[in-house]
Amino acid sequence: MSDYQSPAVSRERLREDFLRIRHQSVAACRPLAIDDYQLQSMPEASPPKWHLGHVTWFFETFLLQPFVRDYPAFHPQFHYLFNSYYNTVGPMQPRPERGLLSRPTVEQVYQYRAHVDAAMAALIEGCEEAQWPALRARVTLGLNHEQQHQELFYMDLKHHFSLNPLRPAYRADLPQPPAAEAAPLGWIDGAEGLIEIGRAGDGFAYDNEGARHPTYLTPYRLADRLTTNGEYLEFIQDGGYDQADLWLADGWAHIQRNGWRHPLYWIEQGEQWQEFTLGGPRPLDPATPVSHISYYEADAFARWADKRLPREAELERELARRPLEGNLHDPKALHPRPGHGQWYGDLWEWTASPYTAYPGFSPPAGAIGEYNGKFMCNQMVLRGGCCVTPQAHLRPSYRNFFYPRDRWMFSGIRLAEDV
Amino acid sequence: MSDYQSPAVSRERLREDFLRIRHQSVAACRPLAIDDYQLQSMPEASPPKWHLGHVTWFFETFLLQPFVRDYPAFHPQFHYLFNSYYNTVGPMQPRPERGLLSRPTVEQVYQYRAHVDAAMAALIEGCEEAQWPALRARVTLGLNHEQQHQELFYMDLKHHFSLNPLRPAYRADLPQPPAAEAAPLGWIDGAEGLIEIGRAGDGFAYDNEGARHPTYLTPYRLADRLTTNGEYLEFIQDGGYDQADLWLADGWAHIQRNGWRHPLYWIEQGEQWQEFTLGGPRPLDPATPVSHISYYEADAFARWADKRLPREAELERELARRPLEGNLHDPKALHPRPGHGQWYGDLWEWTASPYTAYPGFSPPAGAIGEYNGKFMCNQMVLRGGCCVTPQAHLRPSYRNFFYPRDRWMFSGIRLAEDV
Amino acid sequence: MSDYQSPAVSRERLREDFLRIRHQSVAACRPLAIDDYQLQSMPEASPPKWHLGHVTWFFETFLLQPFVRDYPAFHPQFHYLFNSYYNTVGPMQPRPERGLLSRPTVEQVYQYRAHVDAAMAALIEGCEEAQWPALRARVTLGLNHEQQHQELFYMDLKHHFSLNPLRPAYRADLPQPPAAEAAPLGWIDGAEGLIEIGRAGDGFAYDNEGARHPTYLTPYRLADRLTTNGEYLEFIQDGGYDQADLWLADGWAHIQRNGWRHPLYWIEQGEQWQEFTLGGPRPLDPATPVSHISYYEADAFARWADKRLPREAELERELARRPLEGNLHDPKALHPRPGHGQWYGDLWEWTASPYTAYPGFSPPAGAIGEYNGKFMCNQMVLRGGCCVTPQAHLRPSYRNFFYPRDRWMFSGIRLAEDV
Amino acid sequence: MSDYQSPAVSRERLREDFLRIRHQSVAACRPLAIDDYQLQSMPEASPPKWHLGHVTWFFETFLLQPFVRDYPAFHPQFHYLFNSYYNTVGPMQPRPERGLLSRPTVEQVYQYRAHVDAAMAALIEGCEEAQWPALRARVTLGLNHEQQHQELFYMDLKHHFSLNPLRPAYRADLPQPPAAEAAPLGWIDGAEGLIEIGRAGDGFAYDNEGARHPTYLTPYRLADRLTTNGEYLEFIQDGGYDQADLWLADGWAHIQRNGWRHPLYWIEQGEQWQEFTLGGPRPLDPATPVSHISYYEADAFARWADKRLPREAELERELARRPLEGNLHDPKALHPRPGHGQWYGDLWEWTASPYTAYPGFSPPAGAIGEYNGKFMCNQMVLRGGCCVTPQAHLRPSYRNFFYPRDRWMFSGIRLAEDV
Repeated sequence: MSDYQSPAVSRERLREDFLRIRHQSVAACRPLAIDDYQLQSMPEASPPKWHLGHVTWFFETFLLQPFVRDYPAFHPQFHYLFNSYYNTVGPMQPRPERGLLSRPTVEQVYQYRAHVDAAMAALIEGCEEAQWPALRARVTLGLNHEQQHQELFYMDLKHHFSLNPLRPAYRADLPQPPAAEAAPLGWIDGAEGLIEIGRAGDGFAYDNEGARHPTYLTPYRLADRLTTNGEYLEFIQDGGYDQADLWLADGWAHIQRNGWRHPLYWIEQGEQWQEFTLGGPRPLDPATPVSHISYYEADAFARWADKRLPREAELERELARRPLEGNLHDPKALHPRPGHGQWYGDLWEWTASPYTAYPGFSPPAGAIGEYNGKFMCNQMVLRGGCCVTPQAHLRPSYRNFFYPRDRWMFSGIRLAEDV
Repeated sequence: MSDYQSPAVSRERLREDFLRIRHQSVAACRPLAIDDYQLQSMPEASPPKWHLGHVTWFFETFLLQPFVRDYPAFHPQFHYLFNSYYNTVGPMQPRPERGLLSRPTVEQVYQYRAHVDAAMAALIEGCEEAQWPALRARVTLGLNHEQQHQELFYMDLKHHFSLNPLRPAYRADLPQPPAAEAAPLGWIDGAEGLIEIGRAGDGFAYDNEGARHPTYLTPYRLADRLTTNGEYLEFIQDGGYDQADLWLADGWAHIQRNGWRHPLYWIEQGEQWQEFTLGGPRPLDPATPVSHISYYEADAFARWADKRLPREAELERELARRPLEGNLHDPKALHPRPGHGQWYGDLWEWTASPYTAYPGFSPPAGAIGEYNGKFMCNQMVLRGGCCVTPQAHLRPSYRNFFYPRDRWMFSGIRLAEDV
Repeated sequence: MSDYQSPAVSRERLREDFLRIRHQSVAACRPLAIDDYQLQSMPEASPPKWHLGHVTWFFETFLLQPFVRDYPAFHPQFHYLFNSYYNTVGPMQPRPERGLLSRPTVEQVYQYRAHVDAAMAALIEGCEEAQWPALRARVTLGLNHEQQHQELFYMDLKHHFSLNPLRPAYRADLPQPPAAEAAPLGWIDGAEGLIEIGRAGDGFAYDNEGARHPTYLTPYRLADRLTTNGEYLEFIQDGGYDQADLWLADGWAHIQRNGWRHPLYWIEQGEQWQEFTLGGPRPLDPATPVSHISYYEADAFARWADKRLPREAELERELARRPLEGNLHDPKALHPRPGHGQWYGDLWEWTASPYTAYPGFSPPAGAIGEYNGKFMCNQMVLRGGCCVTPQAHLRPSYRNFFYPRDRWMFSGIRLAEDV
Repeated sequence: MSDYQSPAVSRERLREDFLRIRHQSVAACRPLAIDDYQLQSMPEASPPKWHLGHVTWFFETFLLQPFVRDYPAFHPQFHYLFNSYYNTVGPMQPRPERGLLSRPTVEQVYQYRAHVDAAMAALIEGCEEAQWPALRARVTLGLNHEQQHQELFYMDLKHHFSLNPLRPAYRADLPQPPAAEAAPLGWIDGAEGLIEIGRAGDGFAYDNEGARHPTYLTPYRLADRLTTNGEYLEFIQDGGYDQADLWLADGWAHIQRNGWRHPLYWIEQGEQWQEFTLGGPRPLDPATPVSHISYYEADAFARWADKRLPREAELERELARRPLEGNLHDPKALHPRPGHGQWYGDLWEWTASPYTAYPGFSPPAGAIGEYNGKFMCNQMVLRGGCCVTPQAHLRPSYRNFFYPRDRWMFSGIRLAEDV
C-alpha cells in the first residue's frame, strides 16, 4: 500500500502524493490530440476532458468547499457539468451528453485543474490540526477516486478509438510481447471452511469492502492462470455462440439482439483474427489472456469447459496470500500478457458473485454515501485489477463491479470448479 | 408435503393427484369468458389459453414422448406453439406473441388437455416397473410445474384485467376482510452462526434448492409481519418517490423512466386510494400488506425505514421452524390479509439475495436442465409463497425469483436489520 | 352509386339500406371463432370486436346523441372504449391496446349493435321533417364509415391470421382462379391539358374529395393492367432489394431496418413461393397482381422498370371514363385476380401523389372534421378500390391514403410514364 | 446570379470563384475552438470538421477522380469517412457517428482541403478544352454543394451549442436589432390561372427544379411578411399546444411524445422568454419572425389563425417577380430581422407542398443522381432562403426540403389563404 493511504502519513508526504497522482492523469493525456478529448462513443464511456474535469470537481466539492471557508467555485456551472451521479449534491449534465461539452475547452479544463491543485496544496499544508484527520481521509478517498478514473480513461479511450475506422493507436510505440506458447493450465486447491473476507487493517478501503465478516466455503479449485485467446477461439470454433444451452437466458437474448459473435475487440480479417489494442490493431496472440469479455460470455465459456466462475470469496482468499504485483499500470504494457498466475493485474476477473452489501455494510452519510452503495443491484463483482490499474490502488479486498453485459473494461476469465 | 411428492407414492395415488391437480387449472378458468382466454397485456404475462396448453405440452413432451412408444403428437405444431423457453427442445412461438394465437380455439385446447390426461392416466397405470421411479419423479416435476402456472394464471390475469378500463373482477363474490388495525410491528431475533440451507429430505424439490450447504449468518432481526399499505403510504407521503438517495441507482432510473409513484395496482381517486384486486377495485385497506411491489420499491422503503430486506438464508431458517400454513391458495381469498406472522402465504417476500447457484448446484442433463439454471442472473430471490400459491407446492427451501423491476406477481416486504 | 347515397332517397329506403349495410358487418364475421374477435397483431390492425363496436359507436355518437332527445348511452364507458381518434369528442382507449378489451364480450358487443340498430331504425322513421336532410346526410356518412371498416376488417384479419404459425384460413372454401398466362402489358395514352378532378354531382363524397378544381396534366401513359407477381418476382431475382439506387432514401432505410426481401405475404418454401391469402396459403400465381406492397416497394419496382407511378389526377381521369365494376367485394373472391384493365377493384393502386388538401378543401366543423383532414401529411394517395371494397362505397374521385411503409392493405402497382 | 453559375464563365473567373467560395467555409470556422469542430448533437447535425471534409471529398470524388488521370486519393479511407449518402459510390461512416471521428484531426482536414484546392485550381486551369463544359458544370454543382453546407454549418452549430448548458455564442459581437413594432400584416393577391414554374434560363439549377411546367392556381392571397414571435406567442398563450383539433394527427402525436411546448430555441425564464441565437441567448423580440418551427407547428399556427400555408407554386410566382435581396448570409446578421416583405432571406418558409418530382424530372445518371431525387418522400418544400444562405446560392425556383418534424434549420411561417 502506498504511503498516502496510511493513517500516519505526514502533510508533506500527502501533498507530494496528491500532486504526483494528479499529475498522472495529465501524463496519461499526453499522446492525445485536442480532437480526442471530447470523444464519447457510448453513454458509459466518458470523454478524456470530462474525466479531467470530474476528478477535479470531486476535490473542489468534497474538499475545498467543506474545508476552506468562503471558497469560491472556479466556475458557477462546473458543479453541474462535472457532477457524475451524486444526486445529493444537485442535478447534473446527463451522462450520454458529456461529449457535447466543447466548452469549457481543453485549455480551460487544465486551468481548472491548476486552480484546484494549488488550492488543495495550500489546504493540505495549512488546515487546522483538528481537521487534519478528516481532511487526510477525504483526500485519500479523492486520490483513490482519481486513480479509478485513470483506469477508466484507458478503457473509455480504447472504446472511443475502436469505433473510428482509422483505428488509431493511443500509443504507436507500445511493446508487443514475443510469441509464446500458453502455459499449461494447472489448478490450485481451496479447502472447505469458514474464512473471513473484507477490509483488513486500518489502511484505506472503500465502504463496500466492509464489514469484514465470516463466510463459509465448500471445497473448490481455481485455475492457475487466465483463459487465453486460443482457448476462447476453440469455444467459438466449436459453435459456442450458436448453442443456447451454454448461455444464461439473459445472455442468449443479449447476444442475439446485438449480433455478438466474438469478444469486443476481435476483428475477423478473412481467415485471420486481429485484436484492437491501445497500440492499434495487432494479430491475435493465442497465448494472451482473452479480454473484453462480458459476464455472459465468461459464464458461457465456463459452462462449455464444464467449469464455473470463481466466487469472490474464493478469489479474495487467494489474493490475500500473494504479493500485490503483476502486469498493472506501472509496467505500462496497457495490455494483458501471456503468463502464469496472473492473480493481480492483466485483467479484472469476473466472479460468479453478484455485487451486494456485505453484512454490516454501512455507507457514510451524505453524498459520499452514493459512491458505491447505490450500485448494489444487477451487477457482478470482478477482482484482481488489470493492466491499467495503478498498483497503489489495489487491495486483496478490492471489489470492482460491472453489469453482466459490459465488456469495454479489461475483463477476463479465470476458471473454477467445485471439488 | 402432499403425497404425490413422496418417493413412496403409489401409482393409484399419483394418478389421482395428477387428475386432481390438472383439474385445478381448469377450475381456475371457470369464471372466464371465452374472450378472456387470449389476453396478453405484456410479454411477461401469458394468456390463460396459453397456460392451459403449455402445461399440457410439458406432459406430452417430457412424459408421453419419452415414455410411450410411438406416441403421436396431438397436433404437429403444438410443440412450437406451447414451448415456453426450452431451446434444447426446439424453436418456439415468441413470448410477446402468445396473445395472437386465436387458433387453436379454447375448445381445441380443452380437447388437447383431455387427450393428454387420458394418455397420462394410462401411462401412470401401465408403465413398466423399471420405468416407474423415473416416471414418478418426472410426473411430480410436471405437477409442480402445473402448480407454478396456476399461480402465474392469477398474477397474469390480474394484470390483463387491470388494463381494461372497465376493471373487470375475476370473481365479483370474493370476501373482503373486515376493517382492522394493523398489528404492532415486532421483531424476531436471529442468532449468529453457521446453519444449513437448501433441500432437505428426499421429497420433491427443484434443482435450484440444492445442494444443501452451510452458510454463515451474522446476527439479525426479522419483522414479525409484512409491511402494510398504511406504512407504505407514509413512505409515499413523506416523498419517498422523490428522494433519489433512498433508491438504488437502477431503481431511481427505472421509476423516473416509467413515472412510477405508487404500487402497481393502487389507483388514486381524488383524495382516496383504491386497490385493484381479483375482486375488482376496492378501497385501500391500511392494515393489509402492501403488494405488487418491485424490488426497487421494497429496497427504497427499507432504506427509508432505516432497515434492510432479509437475506434468503435468514428467511429459510425461519420458515423451516414453522408450520407450512397461511393465506395460501386454498382459502381462496386471492388477496393478502391483515395479520401477524404471515411467514407462508399472503405475499412472496423480496430478499436481498440475488438468485445464484448454490455450491454444488447441478441441473439435470437435457431440456429439463433449462428449468431453473439459466435464469441465475439479474434476478432476486423471493420466499414464502403467496395467496395464490397451492399449499402443496411450497417448501421452506423453495426459491422463487423475479427481476428487480417486476411487480405483477404478489410480492411484498418483510423488514430486517443487522443487530 | 347506391340509392342510399342519393339526396332523393326515401326514409324507407334509407332504413333498409341502413339495416342491410349494418348486417354486412355481421355477416363478414360469421366464419370467426369467438377467439378470433379480439386479435390485434399490430397497432394499425384492429380486432374484429373493436370494429363492430366502433362503427356502432359512430352512429350512437354522431346520430343518436345529437338527434334523439335524452338518448341514454348504452354503456357509460363505451364512448371511451370505441372512440378511434376523435379528440374533439374526448379521450379514448389507446389504439395499440384495443386487443386487451376482453370485456365487453363479443356477445355484449352484438347486444350493443342490436340496441343501436333499433334506435337508428326508429330515428330514421320518426325524425322531424326539418331534421331529415341533416339526418340523411349524416346516416349516409355513417354507412360509408361502416363500409370502410368492412374493408379494414378483411385487411386486419388477414394480418392477424398471418402471424399465427397455423396460418388459418378465414374461409377455406374460397375459389382459386385457374392458372392462366398474364395478359401482355399495353398502354393507354393520356393527353396534355387542363382537366377537373374532385367530387362531381350531388351524391355523397368525403370532404377530402373537394373542392372540384382544375389541374394541368403533361402527357403521360398508363399501363392497362396491374403489375403481376411474375413481374415482381423478376425484380426480386434481379436483386431489386439489394440495389440502393433503386430506392427512395427512406425506403432503403426502412427495408434494411426491417429486413424486407419480398411482399408482405409471400412465403419462401425451398425453391417455391407461396402467398398467404384469406383462404390460407396458396402457391404464388405469376399472373395474379402483386399485392400487399408498400409505396417504397412500388416506387422501387417502377424505377427498376424505368417507369414511374401514376399521379392521382391521371388515375381519376381514367376512372371517371369507365364503368364502376371489377373484382370488388361483391364477387367475394377476397383476392386479386389475373386480368386486364383492373381499373376498379383488385388492388388499391399507389399513386405518386402525397395526400394533401385540394384547393378549397373545407372540413366540416366539430369532430366530423377530424375524419379526413388531420391525416394530410406523410401519406400517399391510392385509387380504385380493391377486392374487399363494397362496390357501393366507391367513386372515381375516391381518395384512399396510407403511409409509404404500410402494406397490410390490398395495395398494388400500376405503372405509368411521361411521354 | 453569380458569375460562376453562368455558362459563359471564364476559367480564370471560375478558379477565382472556386477559391473564394471554398475560403468562405474556412472563414466561417474562424470563431471556433478546436474543441468545437467535432460536435454532433444529433444524427441530422454534422460536426464542422465533417462538413469541411465532406465538401472537399465531393470535389475529390466527382471532379478530381473522373477528370484527372491517375489522381491519387489524399487518404485511402477518406472516401469512407466523408461520403454522406451516395450509395452508388460505396459504403460510408454512419451519419450518427460522424462525431466520433477525432481523427483525422482538424489540422489534417485543413491539409486535405489545401491539397484538393490546389489540385482543383490546376484542373480548372489546365483541363482540355473538350472537357471544359462538363468540368465547368460539375464545378458549379460542387460550389453550390459547398454553399449548401455553409448554410448547414450554421444551423448545425447552433443546435450543437444550444445543448451546452453554458450556451456559448458562436459570435459574441453579433449586432442585435433595435426594438421595434412589428409591421401590420397585409396581403398580396394572387390571381387564378395557369402559370409556369421550375428552372428558367440556362443558369445553374438543381435537377429537382426541372422540368419547367405549367401548373394551375386557384385564387389566393399571401401575407406580406413573416409571422412574428409576438404572434406565435399569442398562439401559445391561447393554448395552441393543448388543442388537438389544431394539429395534424402526426403532429399531435409528435408534440406529445417529445413534450414540445414552444419553438426549438425558446427558453422560458420565469415570466420572460429568451431565444438562443448564434450570438447566445437574447430576450425574445416580439417583432422578429418566429423561427426554428417544425411544419407541424407552422401548420397548427395557420389553422389557429384560420389561414393556411402557401403552396410552393404560389411562392415561386411571387419570388420570380422580386429582386433577389434580403437578410441573407451577406449582411451577417445570422438571425432573422423584423421587417416587411421578407421574400428572400430571413427564414425558409414552409409550404403546404410535399417534396415530389416535377413532371419530366430526370436526375442525372450515377451517383450525382442521388443528390436530390431519392429524398422525394415524406418531406415538405421550403422556399426563399434564410439569414445564413449565401445570396449567390438562391433562385426563385430553388426548392429546399425537410421533414415535417425538423426544426433545427432557420424555418418560419408565411400565411396564405384561398380567396
